[in-house]
Amino acid sequence: MKINIDRLMQEIQDYGKYGEEQNNGITRPSFSDDDYIVRELFINQLEALNLSVKVDPIANIWATLKGNGKSDSPIVIGSHLDTVPNGGKFDGALGVLVAKEIIQTLQDNHVSLKHDLEIVSFTAEEPNDFNLSTMGSRALTGKLSYSELVKAMDSNGVKLSDAVLKAGGNLEDLSKIKRDDLAAYIELHIEQGKRLEKQDLSIGIVDQIVGIYRDKIEVLGEPNHSGTTMMEDRVDTLVAASEMVIAVEKVVSKFNSDAVATVGKLDNFPNAANIIPGRVDFILEIRSSSKQERAEIRKKIYKEFALIRDRRKVKINIETILNQEECTFDGDIVQYLQRAADSLGIPYTTFGSMAGHDATHMADNTKSAMIFVKSIDGKSHCPEEYSRLDDIEIAANTLLQAVLIADNELD
Amino acid sequence: MKINIDRLMQEIQDYGKYGEEQNNGITRPSFSDDDYIVRELFINQLEALNLSVKVDPIANIWATLKGNGKSDSPIVIGSHLDTVPNGGKFDGALGVLVAKEIIQTLQDNHVSLKHDLEIVSFTAEEPNDFNLSTMGSRALTGKLSYSELVKAMDSNGVKLSDAVLKAGGNLEDLSKIKRDDLAAYIELHIEQGKRLEKQDLSIGIVDQIVGIYRDKIEVLGEPNHSGTTMMEDRVDTLVAASEMVIAVEKVVSKFNSDAVATVGKLDNFPNAANIIPGRVDFILEIRSSSKQERAEIRKKIYKEFALIRDRRKVKINIETILNQEECTFDGDIVQYLQRAADSLGIPYTTFGSMAGHDATHMADNTKSAMIFVKSIDGKSHCPEEYSRLDDIEIAANTLLQAVLIADNELD
Repeated sequence: MKINIDRLMQEIQDYGKYGEEQNNGITRPSFSDDDYIVRELFINQLEALNLSVKVDPIANIWATLKGNGKSDSPIVIGSHLDTVPNGGKFDGALGVLVAKEIIQTLQDNHVSLKHDLEIVSFTAEEPNDFNLSTMGSRALTGKLSYSELVKAMDSNGVKLSDAVLKAGGNLEDLSKIKRDDLAAYIELHIEQGKRLEKQDLSIGIVDQIVGIYRDKIEVLGEPNHSGTTMMEDRVDTLVAASEMVIAVEKVVSKFNSDAVATVGKLDNFPNAANIIPGRVDFILEIRSSSKQERAEIRKKIYKEFALIRDRRKVKINIETILNQEECTFDGDIVQYLQRAADSLGIPYTTFGSMAGHDATHMADNTKSAMIFVKSIDGKSHCPEEYSRLDDIEIAANTLLQAVLIADNELD
Repeated sequence: MKINIDRLMQEIQDYGKYGEEQNNGITRPSFSDDDYIVRELFINQLEALNLSVKVDPIANIWATLKGNGKSDSPIVIGSHLDTVPNGGKFDGALGVLVAKEIIQTLQDNHVSLKHDLEIVSFTAEEPNDFNLSTMGSRALTGKLSYSELVKAMDSNGVKLSDAVLKAGGNLEDLSKIKRDDLAAYIELHIEQGKRLEKQDLSIGIVDQIVGIYRDKIEVLGEPNHSGTTMMEDRVDTLVAASEMVIAVEKVVSKFNSDAVATVGKLDNFPNAANIIPGRVDFILEIRSSSKQERAEIRKKIYKEFALIRDRRKVKINIETILNQEECTFDGDIVQYLQRAADSLGIPYTTFGSMAGHDATHMADNTKSAMIFVKSIDGKSHCPEEYSRLDDIEIAANTLLQAVLIADNELD
């Protein structure tokens, strides 16, 4: 039994039209006009497959392929349909569309599982205007409280509660969102990196998600006139922050591991051509699978920052805004994925994910793991994001086999 | 004959109340509510001194102390009454209030000049919401056209033509703004730098205004996921731009001159904590009194940029957005100021201004020069901007003497 790659390819193309920009990038954040359209399309398709569809209080979309009743605990497959601004067709949508294709394949082949097989499309996995990423999976697993959600508002003043209502959810029912009946969650996603490509592999099986540290750093100096303030009299925070940005790269590159550190956000003040910068805010992000290594990298970076601070006579304020522990996936599910690949004769590697996913949170709820598809040139969150059809086919068939194994093995 | 420093001090205090913020900074851009109030106050005071007041088409305020008729060409002294957001009490206002004090001193002493002595307060010298700095002096000297002015609008959609009308000007009369009868323009201003303080001098006589080069640089790389993209696979434009910012400082610091170079404006894209920056725009500004030196600094900086570009595999686009020649002030007026200081036994230095002023444009119209007053700690465009009363008194008396010399020497 194999999935229908032509049908899947057509769906990837079709969904990629919603939110498409002139440069072929996709802009489809949750609760955008295009997201509402895609939600309706998705629900209509699920209903056309005779699945029972449910939209939960945070507007995650669920649908069930009924099992034969021998097990009460559903197996869940899925991902998310929202994108970053000007992102790609594959991040998120691929996992949802493969899940739908697997259900169709089972139906086409009249295969009845022991477990109900549920598909899920999580709300707002990506960073969004409500400042709540992985919103759907965090709400489901009790990590976002009613009070936090109900006060959330986007930059146009739209209340999250209204946006959710429009998508068929209802924050007033949040207490009913919990699922304690699940047997497993398996998510297929693009790798968004180059590791599989470098090893010439179509798929990777993900046994862990790295921990993430994010600190907000404020560098304070003296804003002054760019003409009348001689070079030796300046306390220029942009020059100081530039040295810090370079130090981050230098420190982390010396670690012989997969650890990465990034300054992705930097804001310069007052940001005028004729005023020496007097304040720079930036976010330092450190990712590593080892808590100890994250701490060590952070310590070494701040040692460099202190030297720069003292030499440049700036002040630094540091605020930790995220300290997310690494997440270890379930050994059984990882093994089912490995066995599925072995049974199909597919070579693979087992590794940690450098990015967070809905599966990070689902792992707190049920036995979870992920399977990655090779990303061409490692590109993601951009119009050039791409995965080849033959790699997608291999991954989808591996996931299908893993679902069959899980259905067999799990109670 | 000496100016009345107590009277002048009182005026500086009084004017500093209009637009005062909680942190004692002054926010009084041209055409703000506080600017309209100050314009009315100023005109009332001038009329109370029996001066004939005129508001010209761009809303520059002029008033005339009649001479004895032996010369037809007025000598003009003044500056501007507008401020940057959260600026100081002295930048601009000091030059206008000293000019008024000089006229009062001449009246108190019943001194009649050969020339008419005019006072001017120029409209919108500072960068402003209409994006037209030194608006009054540039309009007066024909550097801003009717079509450019009439289409100008602030960020609230207020038309400049309406704002000017409310201040007593009228853009429809712009063709009548020209002055071809002036004998001289002398402007007193705070230094806004530390050079006088370092030399322990109260005043500086300004014989030149430096040239300014501004280039907009666009650094292009590869935006990518900050977790999944290993350090060695990145084309991070923020790290590349950081190296460039440091190179700018390094290059210009090696020149043994007053030359300065600054990156004051820098914008990072897409500017998210979890995305490797794929584009950074920044503005490089170079100031030096020598055209040749500016070109040499620029060449050396771009040599460094090219090395960084090649090593970091980024792309660079460069667009020159300002190439303003240095302005040399009139030798006679500079000499009158020097003789005035000598006659009062005041030590001084003669130097170039590192900042542009209305006098830069007036120099194209008539014999012009400037006198600077020491700025404490070099601070300007901030609430801490300050000049000491004894330094102000010395500068005002020097300007008074220079006016008397000019009145004597000029036709």
